[in-house]
Amino acid sequence: MEVRLLAFTKLADSSLIIPGETECDSLVMRAIAQCYQTKPSPRALRTCLLEGHHSVFEHLSFTFAVSDISRTCLAQLTRHRLASYTVESQRYNDYTKKPYRYIVPETIAQDKMSHKMFLKQIEQAKQVYDQLRKRNVPAQDARFVLSEATGVNLTFTMNARELMHVFDLRLSSFAQWEIRNLFYEVLKIVKPLAPRVFAPYPKK
Amino acid sequence: MEVRLLAFTKLADSSLIIPGETECDSLVMRAIAQCYQTKPSPRALRTCLLEGHHSVFEHLSFTFAVSDISRTCLAQLTRHRLASYTVESQRYNDYTKKPYRYIVPETIAQDKMSHKMFLKQIEQAKQVYDQLRKRNVPAQDARFVLSEATGVNLTFTMNARELMHVFDLRLSSFAQWEIRNLFYEVLKIVKPLAPRVFAPYPKK
Amino acid sequence: MEVRLLAFTKLADSSLIIPGETECDSLVMRAIAQCYQTKPSPRALRTCLLEGHHSVFEHLSFTFAVSDISRTCLAQLTRHRLASYTVESQRYNDYTKKPYRYIVPETIAQDKMSHKMFLKQIEQAKQVYDQLRKRNVPAQDARFVLSEATGVNLTFTMNARELMHVFDLRLSSFAQWEIRNLFYEVLKIVKPLAPRVFAPYPKK
Amino acid sequence: MEVRLLAFTKLADSSLIIPGETECDSLVMRAIAQCYQTKPSPRALRTCLLEGHHSVFEHLSFTFAVSDISRTCLAQLTRHRLASYTVESQRYNDYTKKPYRYIVPETIAQDKMSHKMFLKQIEQAKQVYDQLRKRNVPAQDARFVLSEATGVNLTFTMNARELMHVFDLRLSSFAQWEIRNLFYEVLKIVKPLAPRVFAPYPKK
Repeated sequence: MEVRLLAFTKLADSSLIIPGETECDSLVMRAIAQCYQTKPSPRALRTCLLEGHHSVFEHLSFTFAVSDISRTCLAQLTRHRLASYTVESQRYNDYTKKPYRYIVPETIAQDKMSHKMFLKQIEQAKQVYDQLRKRNVPAQDARFVLSEATGVNLTFTMNARELMHVFDLRLSSFAQWEIRNLFYEVLKIVKPLAPRVFAPYPKK
Repeated sequence: MEVRLLAFTKLADSSLIIPGETECDSLVMRAIAQCYQTKPSPRALRTCLLEGHHSVFEHLSFTFAVSDISRTCLAQLTRHRLASYTVESQRYNDYTKKPYRYIVPETIAQDKMSHKMFLKQIEQAKQVYDQLRKRNVPAQDARFVLSEATGVNLTFTMNARELMHVFDLRLSSFAQWEIRNLFYEVLKIVKPLAPRVFAPYPKK
Repeated sequence: MEVRLLAFTKLADSSLIIPGETECDSLVMRAIAQCYQTKPSPRALRTCLLEGHHSVFEHLSFTFAVSDISRTCLAQLTRHRLASYTVESQRYNDYTKKPYRYIVPETIAQDKMSHKMFLKQIEQAKQVYDQLRKRNVPAQDARFVLSEATGVNLTFTMNARELMHVFDLRLSSFAQWEIRNLFYEVLKIVKPLAPRVFAPYPKK
Repeated sequence: MEVRLLAFTKLADSSLIIPGETECDSLVMRAIAQCYQTKPSPRALRTCLLEGHHSVFEHLSFTFAVSDISRTCLAQLTRHRLASYTVESQRYNDYTKKPYRYIVPETIAQDKMSHKMFLKQIEQAKQVYDQLRKRNVPAQDARFVLSEATGVNLTFTMNARELMHVFDLRLSSFAQWEIRNLFYEVLKIVKPLAPRVFAPYPKK
């Protein structure tokens, strides 16, 4: 898995940056200030965090380019509906013409015998895919044979309010390891950009 | 694939049904009438359809119980974010203890050789899954080896406005066969219930 | 203010009602059961409530016909974006041809002097509206002179998950009295229909 | 009315700008390219525009600070639910302590007699507000007497896909003048920033 920040909300004019604050935190403070007709301040931002006025955090969004997450992780990720996804299409992808990648869960990788069985099976599935394609089965149907470990690339955009909600769910110990890793990477990226907004994360 | 209507919006009081109209069409006509302070009528409904006042169709929603669609079809379906999904969990499902089902694309089923390769591969994947489980790999990780053909059950709710939008996209000849079949089944169910609302569908 | 239940989600087939349960609670239990492949039960519903698996409550929605809330209350209500609204149009309403109604806040009604000033002002605004209309000012512009106390009718649909969220915000003592009254009326209607779903409300 | 661009999505690294293209157009092209595993190009962007693959435009969003739109315009604006709003609060605003502004429709301003009646009425409403406040009516209730012409400030964020949808509805000759003016101002701001994305606007 690789997570790269592609884009994020910046102020239209750098003179709007509040001295001593990051550009992202400044944006949120400015939105709050206009609402309450006060001066932008870290204190008002903290109050919004604590008292649940979370809609102000929607003005700030982040776009990530993600490589090589499994199809199972993709299914979990896209359940979060308040976000925008542009996903590499398996219908039009022809894996006979491009590298085929897959994800191996840690619990499998650490058991030699399991690992061997797993790799053999995944590779065989790819070989059957190639043979189906040779027999003129369309890519969109041949992929039915591929395993759920198959890696996928996507671009997604989420605003800070929804990120907080997803952090609550997916950084928890109940979350599956792959999506938890994904959002730890995301948190590592966004926290330095908006330290006041994401101050409560990671939660203990 | 099986699609069954589980529930839908009905009037609180059957005396609100407009004579000669279905309960679903009556509901939409009543919502429109209150908005424009007129009497409920098929004509006002038709005007909303034609002139793009589609928000009135959101008051009417349908809940479907769907069995045995592939994981690839699920991925396409859940891209429609203005709907509610309750999906059978693969993390907690233990396929060693319950029947394992899968979907075979028509293009594969109709070629004897392709079909044979496909079935063999899918069954093998299931066997590796069973062995991984015996070696104490958790269900949520063992499933990485299963194919994308794996069948899944879910319940989903969509309102009539979003259904129209999805019909536009997924009944088209560009859509993949499985999701097209799914929404043809859906249309067959909703059209008799709301013949005026879904009058334009299927589009030629 | 008058709040009337216009419609809500019912089971497609009354044989699906779980013995001893309401139709609405039964629907939610059935959606949960399919997800976890268990039998429908009040216990599973309670677990979803407590552990925050709230998406299952989205399958159940309610449609209300509301009369005579103020424009200020409408502004607060429509801030809840996960709902569907069909609002009486002020652009096309001609108040010279239909009754004009308005809402008087309790804090004003209980002070004789304030009440008198208030009524006089509201009535005058309506008279200026009438005169502007006579001078051929379009209804959509003449309404600029009307007060925010002006009553409005609307139909809105909200699912049970969003209702819970709105109850959390709007039944609180921090909420304004008018929207709090609105959602107390709503709660009175939905609670007997889905006693298990809304068991936690009103919160103390 | 004043519309000012407060913030918008920029690339994380300016080396990602595609030569000869703006930063905003580059972002959209990069998202499309990752999806189809091709090189970023204006042609792919145009194809997405024409063929209705509009979800790629959601990665790009814009935040506006708006001053002095009427309460009626605010009501129309916030009907667009796929956006984020932070609105100056009338509940906590005390207009006895800050300037009170209002909007005069052109159809009223151009008729001397209508204009005079209108101004007198609006000013009187404000005077009654002040008197109610003196009699200890809370600001949240006193505002019921204020007219719908009352000016309001807000910050809102909308992505490019939703902006296109709103342009379709609100730049039309059927839209009311105030919200049409608002979105003409918005279009003037976003078009130079993303000329390829907004190429079809304004539609003739």
